[in-house]
Amino acid sequence: MGRVTERRKVLRIRDGAVSSRPDTLVAEEPLEIRLNGKPLAITMRTPGDDFALAAGFLVSEGVLGGQQDLRNIVYCAGATADGSNTYNVVDVQTAPGVVIPDITLERNVYTTSSCGLCGKASLDAVRTTARWPIADAPPVRVTPELLASLPDRLRAAQRVFDRTGGLHAAALFSEEGELLDVREDVGRHNAVDKLVGRALQNGQLPLSRAILLVSGRASFELAQKAVMAGIPVLAAVSAPSSLAVDLAAETGLTLVGFLRGSSMNVYAGEDRIALRAAAAQG
Amino acid sequence: MGRVTERRKVLRIRDGAVSSRPDTLVAEEPLEIRLNGKPLAITMRTPGDDFALAAGFLVSEGVLGGQQDLRNIVYCAGATADGSNTYNVVDVQTAPGVVIPDITLERNVYTTSSCGLCGKASLDAVRTTARWPIADAPPVRVTPELLASLPDRLRAAQRVFDRTGGLHAAALFSEEGELLDVREDVGRHNAVDKLVGRALQNGQLPLSRAILLVSGRASFELAQKAVMAGIPVLAAVSAPSSLAVDLAAETGLTLVGFLRGSSMNVYAGEDRIALRAAAAQG
Repeated sequence: MGRVTERRKVLRIRDGAVSSRPDTLVAEEPLEIRLNGKPLAITMRTPGDDFALAAGFLVSEGVLGGQQDLRNIVYCAGATADGSNTYNVVDVQTAPGVVIPDITLERNVYTTSSCGLCGKASLDAVRTTARWPIADAPPVRVTPELLASLPDRLRAAQRVFDRTGGLHAAALFSEEGELLDVREDVGRHNAVDKLVGRALQNGQLPLSRAILLVSGRASFELAQKAVMAGIPVLAAVSAPSSLAVDLAAETGLTLVGFLRGSSMNVYAGEDRIALRAAAAQG
Repeated sequence: MGRVTERRKVLRIRDGAVSSRPDTLVAEEPLEIRLNGKPLAITMRTPGDDFALAAGFLVSEGVLGGQQDLRNIVYCAGATADGSNTYNVVDVQTAPGVVIPDITLERNVYTTSSCGLCGKASLDAVRTTARWPIADAPPVRVTPELLASLPDRLRAAQRVFDRTGGLHAAALFSEEGELLDVREDVGRHNAVDKLVGRALQNGQLPLSRAILLVSGRASFELAQKAVMAGIPVLAAVSAPSSLAVDLAAETGLTLVGFLRGSSMNVYAGEDRIALRAAAAQG
């Protein structure tokens, strides 16, 4: 399902020596997401798991909260010049009674009419839209040792990364550190949308006991996706942004960054990190 | 001009030892770009160089081709609750006579009505929109040694990266390897838009003798931005996607990936790479 990689000829230059050989690249294609027949967004993604991607995107946007909100997802007949389906247009049809919020066409950015566009307005919009406030979720506590073990488990589970170097990965773990699911995509947000959408399809939302690990940085949008799926812990291998930290602090999300080796930084939601009391220093 | 970084308290965990200290984070805030008063796009960006970001974005979209197309850029009065300007809404006003193409609200993705959404349609749209076909540009030739020297020059010039680890960088170099400009942003595309926008403001478009270096991967959108600015060589520290390679091949862009140490892969436009004939192997 899906053309995850493609082959292209490449000229390799290594210390002055030149050779020509085929190389494996991550596939990138546009996907148009429609909601009840109406075009909503276009994202550049790695083909595969497209229905999950569309469903997860709509969880982030506050449209879908569970399987019951979903009537059907179909590929539309977007045809190429030779008449074949491109499989690049997906229509999500909601169940009767689902109220569609006012969604801006631009992905993942909320504006309010009462305020000039600003970070605070973005935070407020996520907080008021979230169906499953993280602060109300059942208590989850994880040790630094468990968190430190996750990146290696993610890398072990990645099937494509080593071949192309071009994919972002995202994984869900249980609070015991068990790998629940992993998705890869040329787009960071798409990998998370695919995870969340698959969870919705499996009736697993909210993911109130899960840990979300991302292979790169933690932006506002990724923190937003965690919050909208009810995920209490977001861990990133690289740096968070200021607005991601602010959103985590405001919603109660535990945000861990620079998760490398046995080291990490905790930017918000420290109460879910089980520290040995003796180790704490001022 | 611009809040490039912000400080937040962080809990550092290093090999079981815990300490609390302030940390420097990359700033992230939404920016709404308006065209002649009409909202066009919202991007999450690092504040600063906002006018350049907006102008560069509109070069990529085919709206602006030079200073003469620009009448004015202003911050709109988007006010926070206390009445202060958010500096997060920018209006680009075009000069009389500038024809505004039909732009989809979603960034950087083109569709055509004659074809279902697919990679090919995206390639065709860029090729037919580009003002300065790269294949027609004056010949530029660079050695692998010169390309190999660029990432270190970029890192030396980066002012924020070392402190936050959260920024993408993009730089323009001359064909002699001289650093012309460098921009950093929480968003990969924004860093390139800021470079291109600054070049437009300085009357330097098309950048037909420049090399664009990006600190991460080469996606379709980044290749598109190079093509739209007339840049003949795009080099990336990490992997390209399939569609970026296809776009480069179709437009004549030289695309270099995995530029690390003295090694690199050339995915398209090999004719601009000055190889020593003796070193070439089958």
